[in-house]
Amino acid sequence: MSQEESFDVVIVGAGVLGVATAYYIQKNSPEKTVLIVDRYLAAGQANTAMSAAAVRNMFASSTNQLLTDTSIKYFEHVQNEIGYDLLFEKCGYLWLLSDIQFNNDSVKTWMERMERSGISYHVYNKQELKEMIPGLNVDFEGDEEAELMNLQEVSWGLFGADCGVLDPTRLVEYYLEEFKKICHEKPRFGVDVQELLLEADPKLDLPGEPYVWQKKKVTGVKANKGILKAETVVLATGAWANELLDPIGIDSQTKAKKRQLFVVHAEHKEDLKSVLFSNGFNKYGCIPFTILPSAGVYFRPQLQELGFWIGCGDKEGRAYKYVQSDEDLVPEGIYYENSIYPVLSKYFPAFEDTRPTNSWAGGYCYSPDRIPFVYKKCGVLVVNGASGSGIMKADALARIADALLRGEEVTELFGGKHISSTALGQTDRDIEVESVVI
Amino acid sequence: MSQEESFDVVIVGAGVLGVATAYYIQKNSPEKTVLIVDRYLAAGQANTAMSAAAVRNMFASSTNQLLTDTSIKYFEHVQNEIGYDLLFEKCGYLWLLSDIQFNNDSVKTWMERMERSGISYHVYNKQELKEMIPGLNVDFEGDEEAELMNLQEVSWGLFGADCGVLDPTRLVEYYLEEFKKICHEKPRFGVDVQELLLEADPKLDLPGEPYVWQKKKVTGVKANKGILKAETVVLATGAWANELLDPIGIDSQTKAKKRQLFVVHAEHKEDLKSVLFSNGFNKYGCIPFTILPSAGVYFRPQLQELGFWIGCGDKEGRAYKYVQSDEDLVPEGIYYENSIYPVLSKYFPAFEDTRPTNSWAGGYCYSPDRIPFVYKKCGVLVVNGASGSGIMKADALARIADALLRGEEVTELFGGKHISSTALGQTDRDIEVESVVI
Repeated sequence: MSQEESFDVVIVGAGVLGVATAYYIQKNSPEKTVLIVDRYLAAGQANTAMSAAAVRNMFASSTNQLLTDTSIKYFEHVQNEIGYDLLFEKCGYLWLLSDIQFNNDSVKTWMERMERSGISYHVYNKQELKEMIPGLNVDFEGDEEAELMNLQEVSWGLFGADCGVLDPTRLVEYYLEEFKKICHEKPRFGVDVQELLLEADPKLDLPGEPYVWQKKKVTGVKANKGILKAETVVLATGAWANELLDPIGIDSQTKAKKRQLFVVHAEHKEDLKSVLFSNGFNKYGCIPFTILPSAGVYFRPQLQELGFWIGCGDKEGRAYKYVQSDEDLVPEGIYYENSIYPVLSKYFPAFEDTRPTNSWAGGYCYSPDRIPFVYKKCGVLVVNGASGSGIMKADALARIADALLRGEEVTELFGGKHISSTALGQTDRDIEVESVVI
Repeated sequence: MSQEESFDVVIVGAGVLGVATAYYIQKNSPEKTVLIVDRYLAAGQANTAMSAAAVRNMFASSTNQLLTDTSIKYFEHVQNEIGYDLLFEKCGYLWLLSDIQFNNDSVKTWMERMERSGISYHVYNKQELKEMIPGLNVDFEGDEEAELMNLQEVSWGLFGADCGVLDPTRLVEYYLEEFKKICHEKPRFGVDVQELLLEADPKLDLPGEPYVWQKKKVTGVKANKGILKAETVVLATGAWANELLDPIGIDSQTKAKKRQLFVVHAEHKEDLKSVLFSNGFNKYGCIPFTILPSAGVYFRPQLQELGFWIGCGDKEGRAYKYVQSDEDLVPEGIYYENSIYPVLSKYFPAFEDTRPTNSWAGGYCYSPDRIPFVYKKCGVLVVNGASGSGIMKADALARIADALLRGEEVTELFGGKHISSTALGQTDRDIEVESVVI
């Protein structure tokens, strides 16, 4: 029954990184047969769809700045010049910081590095913040509960006007549609890849190959629907990477972690609507994507649905997973209630007595230095570890993957900037460690 | 039924890293109660006992040079001055290299860095090697099989006289006996630690603690025999680290990998005995610990049992494991037969027709930069990732762990050399990546 087919490139994973990579590979190698497969029934339905899909160029490492800034500029180009609506709204990013946080060396370095790279930002002081966001509680003087909760006061706001939010499904559709216009092979869904085929090169047809003294190469994948052979296999499986790489002896250096989003509506709640429509930050007259000074709590404004998506970048206490488990797809109401809500409602009392009307969860693909990986090893091209910022780096990562495939030492990113194609590799990794993660 | 006891320090894992750490902690904090636990029924019975237990200071990174050189000097001190026999024999290490390998930049850097650090080595040329090891086949001119097997010729030998082999069980016993002389708590065996207890600090006794807004600390461990509370938990569980760290959200950055050793006896085999007694390298008149130029195959001479321990540092094709599995304790005869033996018998024809008389397997705790980790996070002090060189670094790593526990910024190693106590940490890791691994 086991059917075998051959392609030049097989791309495993039709999330945003997979489809963007497919597009650039096909565009720059029009003669190649490029097949995208995904185990879900459509593109971008796994963790891409679960993302908060906020985009920012405000990173501390020049590496992440370059990856995001060029990708965001490309998204603007797609929306404004090509005319494909990504629902990209530059509502801005706002970090609320205590005095101690603001004066910390790492924040100083962050601001210096943004200046050096020409990334624009603005600093608001406490008084300005109070005026612009009347619903914000900036200090907790005398509030014993807040003290017990280790809540930091708000003294400063670090604002980036070139940041914003978009619709990840639209972005996936854009790349996929462009890919489909030029591809030879129709993407296939419901294809569950179970194994990378590591074979001896050359094969001697001896039992138990490959032996240690043989050269080895991944020659394709074994999927539920047969064998798919390929000159290059691209792995864009995010939080599932270990499942395929570990068995053949490639350490992804990434792990999975569960992340959740909770939706709270402001309809019929005037004070919450006032928070949502905090004016003066952007042309939409809405509050930016906002990160609280405590506990990693953040929210994304949702104008269309008159509400907020609320999340939390939790650290110790939240398990790492070898690969994403099914349990990682189940949001925990109790987590909102006990961990997020108490913090949120202290800073924004308008959230008091609100309950989420919707919620979802997905797998975060964590990289130890908070910089993604793109490398080719043994015939596999791996793109992963984008750690909650895969959407905002997708265009740059896909161009690097394509350049690696074509053997180009340097990748040209959107807008003409360049990066070494091996900078994000595991060997001779040439990056700045990122310190600003949410 | 669940019993609860309290200690200042609980050390999980009585392998060489665990017992050495216990010894230095107890020695430098005589008032503290230090409990060692292990799930096996005696110390050093897991992967420490499975090791090839070779020791070398011939590394390319100054970090590994320092860790090994000071540890090896301490082992010599123990054996020669304290008079505790570790069966430490300086038989030397011999890397056999092809011309291309020898002239590779990484080997040049390796030699330069050893010179800079005062690590002595000697280079033998092909003619010298042929004379000193008559049983060695140095080239495969016209041997099609060898060509098919990608075997490199032998043109050079890189030899380190200060390297050798020891008995890991004796080393564990030494530290354990010294620890027992000064400890307040008898080590406990058959204690299987199932969980690190991550608790809110301070505890509010609310259901589901700790929440994201609370400070958190590991306050002890949950074991099959009850709760063991501790101010500091030391984790020295090697290839099992992820099992305890991942659930509380600490990424060890290490993985497990199976490694195997096969014993071949030279008794009644004169030509193999001649290989074993290749003269001129050391005072024992035996061949050094030898690494072949191809496929990662190496052997350790065993004078007492008149034979060799043979292993292989296999790379792609050998699975990484999330944590060591039981299957990793089962050696594979077929692996010796198909992968190791063909290579070994090409370089040393005296191995032809030999079969292993014994074999064993264990878990290698792999670190991506080939430098071990020692750090304290959330009340856990982790010592791991020693990647097949844990024995030869044990003394230095244990001293660093103890210094970290005592809050000392700088660790004094044996012989008066110093290292920053946070150099092997995850944050602000200050190391040179290692390139010479077997």
